[in-house]
Amino acid sequence: MIPPPPITIKDIARQFNCSPSTVSRALNDHYTISEDTRRSIQQYAQQAGYQRNLVSLSLLNKLSGTLGIIVPTISDSYESSVIEGLHTALRPMGYSLTICVTGESRALEAEYVLRLLANRVEGIFLSVAQETYDSGHYDHLAMVTQRQLPLVLIDRDYASLPVSRVTADDYHGAWAVVEHLIQVGCRRIAHLRGPAGLTVSEQRFAGYIDCLTQHGLPICDELILPTNFKIDSAVLPTQQLLNLPTRPDAIFGVNDQVAIGAMRVLRERGLRIPDDVAVAGFDDSPTAAYTCPSLTTVARSGQKLSAEAARLFLQHKQTPGHTPIESVVLPAQLIVRESSQRVG
Amino acid sequence: MIPPPPITIKDIARQFNCSPSTVSRALNDHYTISEDTRRSIQQYAQQAGYQRNLVSLSLLNKLSGTLGIIVPTISDSYESSVIEGLHTALRPMGYSLTICVTGESRALEAEYVLRLLANRVEGIFLSVAQETYDSGHYDHLAMVTQRQLPLVLIDRDYASLPVSRVTADDYHGAWAVVEHLIQVGCRRIAHLRGPAGLTVSEQRFAGYIDCLTQHGLPICDELILPTNFKIDSAVLPTQQLLNLPTRPDAIFGVNDQVAIGAMRVLRERGLRIPDDVAVAGFDDSPTAAYTCPSLTTVARSGQKLSAEAARLFLQHKQTPGHTPIESVVLPAQLIVRESSQRVG
Repeated sequence: MIPPPPITIKDIARQFNCSPSTVSRALNDHYTISEDTRRSIQQYAQQAGYQRNLVSLSLLNKLSGTLGIIVPTISDSYESSVIEGLHTALRPMGYSLTICVTGESRALEAEYVLRLLANRVEGIFLSVAQETYDSGHYDHLAMVTQRQLPLVLIDRDYASLPVSRVTADDYHGAWAVVEHLIQVGCRRIAHLRGPAGLTVSEQRFAGYIDCLTQHGLPICDELILPTNFKIDSAVLPTQQLLNLPTRPDAIFGVNDQVAIGAMRVLRERGLRIPDDVAVAGFDDSPTAAYTCPSLTTVARSGQKLSAEAARLFLQHKQTPGHTPIESVVLPAQLIVRESSQRVG
Repeated sequence: MIPPPPITIKDIARQFNCSPSTVSRALNDHYTISEDTRRSIQQYAQQAGYQRNLVSLSLLNKLSGTLGIIVPTISDSYESSVIEGLHTALRPMGYSLTICVTGESRALEAEYVLRLLANRVEGIFLSVAQETYDSGHYDHLAMVTQRQLPLVLIDRDYASLPVSRVTADDYHGAWAVVEHLIQVGCRRIAHLRGPAGLTVSEQRFAGYIDCLTQHGLPICDELILPTNFKIDSAVLPTQQLLNLPTRPDAIFGVNDQVAIGAMRVLRERGLRIPDDVAVAGFDDSPTAAYTCPSLTTVARSGQKLSAEAARLFLQHKQTPGHTPIESVVLPAQLIVRESSQRVG
């Protein structure tokens, strides 16, 4: 389909009095070649009608310069900040990123892993799909480690897989925010939880339960209602909470979106935040500081997580097969704002 | 590194009394094979120690079942809803998606196009990087069309490229929201604009300018200040607007994030929204209905855009080389909420 190249990389190298590998790197926008040189060589190559044979290029190059990122979703600001962070850390080293979204499907995760291997990625960052997690089967991931290809788990732990991982401490983050609500005087703390079965929901839920128990407060089933992480999924459960004979004096949302949805319902009912009902979320999304009142939340840094993940990948590249397995747990940080600052 | 396969696809096919291509599809989780059959074949293949040679697989398969999506960013909710929409529309047909983020870089966009071609994608959805747009050079895109590979432009138009495209009508959306602000009695309408040079900023800015002019209102330079689309970038310019000898009576933010940032500053100054200053945004992000007051905005549907883009791709697949070029412009819809409902 593509005509045979009229001139070769060697011809261009002769023209510029440099090595063919310099020409190749210049044509590939490699960071080691100066902007000026790249431009001159690219311009000449274009004028001379040089055409790369892409398929054979991908076959001959042992190193593709591509990294795969497999995540369950890209629809929240946390996931995108992780991906942006990986890009920022690894792009200057000449890597490009291929992003695959599984929607929590194990079959799709396996398909993407195979595809990335076939496309000769140099490493994979993976936030394990819930289905994989639940199934306990990870042959598709074992295949990656068998090939000595760097695999770094991000965001979600998967204990049975012997690879390095970076996660945020959801459990202690939830604990900290619930303890804070208790300290400002709340006793009936409701939890708008995430979908059952998802690790992130379960960890935050467990932190909520254990903190209440630790402080001798009862667990009330009627104060625990499910959401799907989205802002509008908070509306009905919040109304339900406010219709209870004794309403809660605090609402802890599984994430900021849910907390913001709850705040809207509270205001519509004429309730004061935080005096009648205190509110807290999780994630420290960009909006949290700008709601009215501003939202108490827990920060988990996508930037820090991606920086650690990039470090683990590079470490693996430097000493393939001899890299110790590291498990990095990033602390989650309580951020107190107006929505929970009540006077005891 | 991988041992030679002890058994072949043909062996497995014989065992199940089916064709080798059925086995191949079952091993690849292809949607045409029932869940039960897939599971039995995969289980058997695993027990019998069958191992695919992935690299040769990618070479032999003419159709990869993969589609590429190249976008400048995934960090706003609109982009993610477009990607989710493409996934929803095309996944049931067996396609998987590879997402590439350019950060507005032309070099990176070109690199991703080459990589996707080398990896034999069956089509590319592209939101053109600003650098490509500005440069006017699109050899890397011409290469896609030369190969008769479906290329669909999404979100951003690129007039000089003869391919189908779906875009939202930013210009008329901005016009509609500014006209609405005029109708509720605003006369000094400020605009917190997006970064200069970006199409989306320029289109909304042009709609703002032309609408004011059409209604005989003056263009005041001191009422037009830049932001970077992010919520905190609205703070300083909004303070600057409120420090003017005559403050604006409305603020139109280039997107909802910027409008929400402006609302926070207005409240901190003790100004009433909308009575002292009306506020409007753009995008109808999930948060817009939940701010206090709720935010007047313009909806552009990522779901509709992706549905149209998927339709154009499938049309091209059905009649390769004979597909008429379509340019779909989706209307933007004004959504009036509390932040602009003042009594004239």
